[in-house]
Amino acid sequence: MLTAQSLGHLRAMGIGARPNPPVALQRVHLATPSLQPAALAQLSGLVGEEGLSSDHADRVAHAAGRGYPDLVRLRSGEPDGAPDAIVRPSDHDQLRGVLELCAQHSIAVVPFGGGTSVVGGVAAVRGGHESVIALDMARLARLLDLDRTSLTATVQGGMRAPALERELQRHTLTLGHFPQSFEYVSVGGCVATRSAGQASSGYGAIAKMVLGLRVVAPAADIDLPPIPATAAGPGLRELLVGSEGALGVIEHVALRLRRAPAQSIYEAAFFADFAAGVQTLRSLAQRHALPDLARLSDRPETEVSLALAQSGSIAERVGRSYLGLRGYRHGCLAIFGFEGQRGEAAERHERARRLISEGGGLVVGRSPAQAWRRTRFTAPYLRDELLSNGIMVETLETAAQWSRLLDLHREVASAIDAALKGCGTPGVVMCHVSHLYETGASLYFTFIAQQLRGDELAQWQTVKRAASDAVVRGGGTITHHHAIGRDHAPWMEREVGDGGLRALRALKAELDPRGIMNPGKLAL
Amino acid sequence: MLTAQSLGHLRAMGIGARPNPPVALQRVHLATPSLQPAALAQLSGLVGEEGLSSDHADRVAHAAGRGYPDLVRLRSGEPDGAPDAIVRPSDHDQLRGVLELCAQHSIAVVPFGGGTSVVGGVAAVRGGHESVIALDMARLARLLDLDRTSLTATVQGGMRAPALERELQRHTLTLGHFPQSFEYVSVGGCVATRSAGQASSGYGAIAKMVLGLRVVAPAADIDLPPIPATAAGPGLRELLVGSEGALGVIEHVALRLRRAPAQSIYEAAFFADFAAGVQTLRSLAQRHALPDLARLSDRPETEVSLALAQSGSIAERVGRSYLGLRGYRHGCLAIFGFEGQRGEAAERHERARRLISEGGGLVVGRSPAQAWRRTRFTAPYLRDELLSNGIMVETLETAAQWSRLLDLHREVASAIDAALKGCGTPGVVMCHVSHLYETGASLYFTFIAQQLRGDELAQWQTVKRAASDAVVRGGGTITHHHAIGRDHAPWMEREVGDGGLRALRALKAELDPRGIMNPGKLAL
Repeated sequence: MLTAQSLGHLRAMGIGARPNPPVALQRVHLATPSLQPAALAQLSGLVGEEGLSSDHADRVAHAAGRGYPDLVRLRSGEPDGAPDAIVRPSDHDQLRGVLELCAQHSIAVVPFGGGTSVVGGVAAVRGGHESVIALDMARLARLLDLDRTSLTATVQGGMRAPALERELQRHTLTLGHFPQSFEYVSVGGCVATRSAGQASSGYGAIAKMVLGLRVVAPAADIDLPPIPATAAGPGLRELLVGSEGALGVIEHVALRLRRAPAQSIYEAAFFADFAAGVQTLRSLAQRHALPDLARLSDRPETEVSLALAQSGSIAERVGRSYLGLRGYRHGCLAIFGFEGQRGEAAERHERARRLISEGGGLVVGRSPAQAWRRTRFTAPYLRDELLSNGIMVETLETAAQWSRLLDLHREVASAIDAALKGCGTPGVVMCHVSHLYETGASLYFTFIAQQLRGDELAQWQTVKRAASDAVVRGGGTITHHHAIGRDHAPWMEREVGDGGLRALRALKAELDPRGIMNPGKLAL
Repeated sequence: MLTAQSLGHLRAMGIGARPNPPVALQRVHLATPSLQPAALAQLSGLVGEEGLSSDHADRVAHAAGRGYPDLVRLRSGEPDGAPDAIVRPSDHDQLRGVLELCAQHSIAVVPFGGGTSVVGGVAAVRGGHESVIALDMARLARLLDLDRTSLTATVQGGMRAPALERELQRHTLTLGHFPQSFEYVSVGGCVATRSAGQASSGYGAIAKMVLGLRVVAPAADIDLPPIPATAAGPGLRELLVGSEGALGVIEHVALRLRRAPAQSIYEAAFFADFAAGVQTLRSLAQRHALPDLARLSDRPETEVSLALAQSGSIAERVGRSYLGLRGYRHGCLAIFGFEGQRGEAAERHERARRLISEGGGLVVGRSPAQAWRRTRFTAPYLRDELLSNGIMVETLETAAQWSRLLDLHREVASAIDAALKGCGTPGVVMCHVSHLYETGASLYFTFIAQQLRGDELAQWQTVKRAASDAVVRGGGTITHHHAIGRDHAPWMEREVGDGGLRALRALKAELDPRGIMNPGKLAL
């Protein structure tokens, strides 16, 4: 996947490769499990032997998510803790029983779906507790109900996104939720982290899809049936979306579906500069012409995309010389997607295209966009390969009002760039705008640099802190769709204020009085 | 307004008129104000003399909202309590000071915007406290910021909707929020009650417009800046939307705007029956063809609309004979509205029209729809006139998934009908569908009957209880946009469960530990 040519490109940018392979699975070091025999026996009595595991491989697999520090630690064989056991309940009573038992025995509970958190959301933190388990939702993974009239599916939290899509496609339906972690992510995990799919501009982020849900907490169940909208008091559904396992576990959720698209039109365009592209995205969002997917790369990301394009299709089809002739040589690549019923998608595409042209966009056809679609879930694999070559690659994201977006882009990119230089590892910082709203959009940054061998975590910490400070200083949210987890917890108070934190902590005290649920996450 | 002809129509339906005029303002009976002189002096010190009032007319005006039982009581001169004083803070410090002072002196605080609650949301309930004040937001009523790039306005809670629209129209912008109470309602009141405007199908209910807000509670401020979306933990913004003054007061709110429509296309259509109309609304909602406004009257409401149409335009333009010829004599009237930029609104109208025709809708032109628009805020005035004629008119609403909608319509209508008959006052029960979502819609019931003279409140209570029980039994929410207030509080636990109520009560205990904020509302 990572070709000699790609590594050559990186070298040309000053980022050299040095082999840095991961240790073998059996060499990963874990502490001896600390669960008391009495607690183990009771857990086993609850969920059966098949629902309880503490073998080495299972513990390693549940030791961390897929954030950069997680990977650095795992690859070196020294994860930051691991669960003492993995517990897999298979019905409501087992789930409730496990939480009550854990509260009683002072066992921390880390809800675990696909394990794809990139912010330390599934780190096996025990807080002040004796032990910690991973509550793996793999056996609560069924489609419970499909209401084809109301386009609503009720799904257990542990169901993986691809399994749900397969079921839905048999009925010509889709959830339309395709985050980069799609191949592994669980539905409950998406809801717990306020995930946004790549086509969220049209389908909406997961928060817009939740019609009802049941959350099981140590001290109570909250059960909210599916309804399209209500004025019955504070928005409890929305409150539980984004609760990151720190208030309770999402047992099942009712989600809004769409009819599977009969037509998908994906198209690429170039803008002469980033500002012109941003202006056009805003115009699409504010003039009833929102594509289902829209992303605009800044100049560095456009350069790297063209240079690294594996299939070569973007680079081939959109010859630099052609763009140069048209004045777009240093331009910014945008990709737009329209999905829907035949005719309807085309109509929306037509309306959007007029605005794209008016905004100075040069439409360069469908192949570059198709190339992007083919590789839309591959970035995590590429990251693994870069890590094996001693190269750090990390992403972070935010969202802000349109009026702040260009400044925020510049400020955060500068902060990352300066921090990397400060570490003595200058790198490449790139960004795209995606997830459009009428009032603003998301910025998604990627940066690549040589690893500071032996000091990888400190290097990461330095850059992460600089970027996050720049984000909140510039009026952005600390996270648009990666969630808070452990990594963003230090910025949570800045995000919701002391009053907001107090409100959340009061909620947690009521639902989880012993504080066993996902300690150390969400700053709760 | 209420013509002899209209009263004749009602008589023909078995609903006779008997004059029942309200008592004069000065004859409304209020208890002597109970505020202690020390508290009064401190309040006056905080907000100034111009910010404090306890005169008779002011107290009567703040004694209740505009629900049916409120009006019955006020008109008889016996309101169910009244505030001991009306306090009007004019800045943040005054607002905070008033809440802290009231907490200290055990004075209940009822936040008051336009006073248009129809569910007892502003009833001057003191709970267990010594006294009760109305916290009138009239002096916190400015547009604080207008971000034309991000289409975002930051507005103080007390600003009235028409004042905001006037300001926005100078910039060719609109909030697009037009509830029936539009002429009086405050922006903070809309947010506190999860209001939905008549064109919410396109513009979204107020919950979709809130980007940030500041809520001032006795024990804390919660200040959430405007952002388009975030994954930073539980949805605190949504939690505060719908908090009905029971957690704190909305000092200001940042709201998403739209460009003012350059074109508005309002059109009426007839469906042969209610089911065909509902099926078509669902198809519009699920096929990317949602009108900004859509409402479909059932047969009784269609009959009454045609009979009572003040201008006569609906009846004139859509002659019964014409409809009869086409097989729609007993049909159901629908109104569709499309607002937007020139061309764009027309395109959406075209797409919707195809689906309306496919669904069996007979488009009867624009005049009936224009007639509806002209009188869209007049129902409350008509209600007053009916009350003066001894005729009860009341509305209630719900929302449910499409798969439940037809059954729910039948069940709730039957329950109201049976309850009215049980009171010995058979009436007319009618309904329309409005506020469309992809997964469901709202049902809005109106019923008219002769008042049970001397027993008006018991009569109302009987019907309200029967209807509400039918709503929740049938899978509807107890309220789609009227809020909980006092009248729906008995159904709140059924709506959010014991766990949901406990979560909300824990929040309240944190933010309002003395329980002074709007006692008796929201079941908190």
